[in-house]
Amino acid sequence: MKKTKKKIKAAILIIGNEVLSGRTQDLNVSFISNWLNINCGISVGEVRIIPDIEKKIIYNVLDLNKKFNYTFTTGGIGPTHDDITALSIAKAFKVKYEFNKEAYLILEKYYGKNNFNEGRKKMAKMPKGSALIYNPSSAAPGFKIKNILCLPGVPSILKSMMGNVKKFLIKGSITISESINLLTVESHICLDIEKLQKEYLKKVEIGSYPFFRLGKVGVSIVLRSSNKIHLKSCLKKLKKIIKNKKIKLF
Amino acid sequence: MKKTKKKIKAAILIIGNEVLSGRTQDLNVSFISNWLNINCGISVGEVRIIPDIEKKIIYNVLDLNKKFNYTFTTGGIGPTHDDITALSIAKAFKVKYEFNKEAYLILEKYYGKNNFNEGRKKMAKMPKGSALIYNPSSAAPGFKIKNILCLPGVPSILKSMMGNVKKFLIKGSITISESINLLTVESHICLDIEKLQKEYLKKVEIGSYPFFRLGKVGVSIVLRSSNKIHLKSCLKKLKKIIKNKKIKLF
Repeated sequence: MKKTKKKIKAAILIIGNEVLSGRTQDLNVSFISNWLNINCGISVGEVRIIPDIEKKIIYNVLDLNKKFNYTFTTGGIGPTHDDITALSIAKAFKVKYEFNKEAYLILEKYYGKNNFNEGRKKMAKMPKGSALIYNPSSAAPGFKIKNILCLPGVPSILKSMMGNVKKFLIKGSITISESINLLTVESHICLDIEKLQKEYLKKVEIGSYPFFRLGKVGVSIVLRSSNKIHLKSCLKKLKKIIKNKKIKLF
Repeated sequence: MKKTKKKIKAAILIIGNEVLSGRTQDLNVSFISNWLNINCGISVGEVRIIPDIEKKIIYNVLDLNKKFNYTFTTGGIGPTHDDITALSIAKAFKVKYEFNKEAYLILEKYYGKNNFNEGRKKMAKMPKGSALIYNPSSAAPGFKIKNILCLPGVPSILKSMMGNVKKFLIKGSITISESINLLTVESHICLDIEKLQKEYLKKVEIGSYPFFRLGKVGVSIVLRSSNKIHLKSCLKKLKKIIKNKKIKLF
């Protein structure tokens, strides 16, 4: 895996009416985002969830491709009539939508020649010039074209394929984080945290997240940075604030 | 609540680094989307998740405001330094960012005069001309300006406020749905479903969603329509397909 010290940013484009309608709870965003940061030093800068509509897929693929180093799509690469991701991306980049020979052979072997029907064959069709992202759990491969990487929507299958995405990516600087859970409310510490954020502007990103647990109210303070030294010194100052304000840990 | 027979479309804009980084699993999209459809006949047409960055909030608020009847934002309206939704939206619409008198009084009463510190006061600041969305669980109100409705990110608080959003919305035609779970794989029935979809084009939206449950593979076929008669006749034909193909129900 090639490396760079630059920040590498990715977008996620979730294609599926079922997520938009609220029928299906998305689980892929948090998985992909965590996986990319830990394994590749890539952070996700934007997510969009859009319906299975060709012109919306084309618009968003081109728009995100301009704005981010990589765009991961999920969903719409199965055998059914509403699986239109591959065709739409072919149209977006004005290349042919055709059988990928390798994908065809993989699927023919997986289903057996006699059971390799039209719907199954469709999963071997993709934009001309695509590279395959192998699928160890259910055979049908994803694909990469330009800086768009297309994955399925089913979380267990997507997870099994992420390792095969790595070879297409350039590794950026990994973001490390520290978090402290406090038995307090945000409005009690927000001014101190704001001062601390100003001191570490562009060095450490400080987030403040209220939560409810076991009948109590708490706040998670999360520090994120690609630089260990900045992170440690910021954490030290945060601990001092907590001590001075006599805030208990959760 | 005013009604229309037209389709009313909404967007959701999730503002928060914690969702993008994968630290926090979003739960608001499915709740808002289901709630809007059931209670208001409004369907969600797009979701975006963006970081706590002013220029990104401004760009996306204006972009979605152009494209959708309503845009719901979640997150960034608390007391901390990273809560910049209200200020950013004021800048987007080029109006003042100032104390809302009613919100100020609500919060002053809630915290008590002696505990009403700067952070807490910040939650009363919003774009000039905003209408309040009352918050029965933790007092700090959301707000509506133009067709943007701003809600907090904490799911339990957001849920408690949704009822207070209704008065700002025009009711569209409610989408009803039917679904059948089959003990089969998508590629076995996709051609029949595709034909059925063509027959009911623009009348019924047919979705096909594979799932794994209890060690078995299944497919949910979901029919969605705003017209009961179309939905029933489409369901009848779907059942005929299932019978002819001798597919068992899950």
